[in-house]
Amino acid sequence: MDRPIGVIDSGVGGMTVARELMRQLPNEELIYVGDTLRCPYGPRPKEEVIEYTWQMVHFLLKKQIKMLVIACNTATAFTLQELKATLDIPVLGVIQPGARAAIKGTDNLQIGVIGTEGTIKSKAYADALHQINPFINVSGLACPAFVPMVEQGVLDGPEAHKVVRETLEPLKQNSSIDTLILGCTHYPLLENMIQQVMGEDITVICSGDETAREVSVILEYYQLLYQSNRLPNHHFYTTGDKQLFEKIANDWFDTPILNIHSLQLEVTQQL
Amino acid sequence: MDRPIGVIDSGVGGMTVARELMRQLPNEELIYVGDTLRCPYGPRPKEEVIEYTWQMVHFLLKKQIKMLVIACNTATAFTLQELKATLDIPVLGVIQPGARAAIKGTDNLQIGVIGTEGTIKSKAYADALHQINPFINVSGLACPAFVPMVEQGVLDGPEAHKVVRETLEPLKQNSSIDTLILGCTHYPLLENMIQQVMGEDITVICSGDETAREVSVILEYYQLLYQSNRLPNHHFYTTGDKQLFEKIANDWFDTPILNIHSLQLEVTQQL
Repeated sequence: MDRPIGVIDSGVGGMTVARELMRQLPNEELIYVGDTLRCPYGPRPKEEVIEYTWQMVHFLLKKQIKMLVIACNTATAFTLQELKATLDIPVLGVIQPGARAAIKGTDNLQIGVIGTEGTIKSKAYADALHQINPFINVSGLACPAFVPMVEQGVLDGPEAHKVVRETLEPLKQNSSIDTLILGCTHYPLLENMIQQVMGEDITVICSGDETAREVSVILEYYQLLYQSNRLPNHHFYTTGDKQLFEKIANDWFDTPILNIHSLQLEVTQQL
Repeated sequence: MDRPIGVIDSGVGGMTVARELMRQLPNEELIYVGDTLRCPYGPRPKEEVIEYTWQMVHFLLKKQIKMLVIACNTATAFTLQELKATLDIPVLGVIQPGARAAIKGTDNLQIGVIGTEGTIKSKAYADALHQINPFINVSGLACPAFVPMVEQGVLDGPEAHKVVRETLEPLKQNSSIDTLILGCTHYPLLENMIQQVMGEDITVICSGDETAREVSVILEYYQLLYQSNRLPNHHFYTTGDKQLFEKIANDWFDTPILNIHSLQLEVTQQL
């Protein structure tokens, strides 16, 4: 079907999901909205996250998207059920795919989750895991230092290592987990360091990669896949600094993102 | 939802899918039908496979299944589209989940597929892969010696190694693949040998494991997951030798399968 997939995020983290979508579904066209002006969502009250998310969704619905991907863990935790119930297109968040991949990966049913304060406090991963398998033991840890580090481009070096090591220490003490979910779309940028600190025996799950895989499941299931070859024309919108967004996009993607636009979101009523 | 998942296979191979379903979805109840009497389906004409598959489906529909899993590659290749279009419950085959996992796994877009004559000749994996990514190069190889070997319980030893090595030789010559799909539900029983012969650098995809993961996606998406804890009461039906089926089931599953029944399938009209 010749309509784009909408991807929303609080900022640039969702680009890790967009990148995987482009890689796994090279014929699909994306419209990405990053609310960089109001990033991060992690520490914001639930009502605010819901309102901001709806603003992005309203913008994308006007663009005739065929599917919505909530590429932000905090927004998924607070809005997924409501959006699924309200919209007449398929809606997928990043939490359930990460949970399902972890369930597939674990042998000992001990799963760790790291994410923002908002995601960890919401217990959304624990809920998603227990909905499928109530016998899973979940260890959650908020890592508030990671997002600012990624947004500043500090992705390696002794200082970054120190932060990652010290942050993950409480989870390492609880050494029984065999699977760790990166429950924030910024964290894949720190994956190598996280893997190193946690040890090679731990299976690290990137929710974004798993989400791209499940977008593919849903599109095929609903017969919404684009049916021939094309060079898709992606569009990226930012509510914040366009130059900075452009720089990060061109650092993160293999091919240059040509269509980057500034966007002012409108205060809106829920559907 | 308090209704079972139906799983059909030409014989015992689909038990690898059932085992993964039990592991990844421990609250879900299964009804498994193995048409061991007429196994293997691989060399049979398409019309025959379609008729036999419908016989199993009719039996399961009377059992009020909430979802159908075609845990047989040959049956998936020949009947998936028709069953999806006809039944009013979700239907999932083993081919698409394997294809999607391979697309997620590959770096160089060179994917190998091994399966029965029927599956390889149908080009069902190549079609599923190309529907998502037309740039993928698919190398298919029929391995007719593998199913009889597994059915006879020959899963290791120098003789089995020799068969696996010689069978896979043509695929090894085409050494550019980085991902190999086990496109037959019997093959996971030979996975270690196959991995050894192909080399550690090759990512081996078990379609069955991936199918269980996607059943979880679909059940959650349709709000069909069973919502609390229970010890499910699975039922297994065989059209062939019940004692042999029982022996294999108890070899393959961690917990004993208590309810194994003989079944005579009825010649039937398609819905």
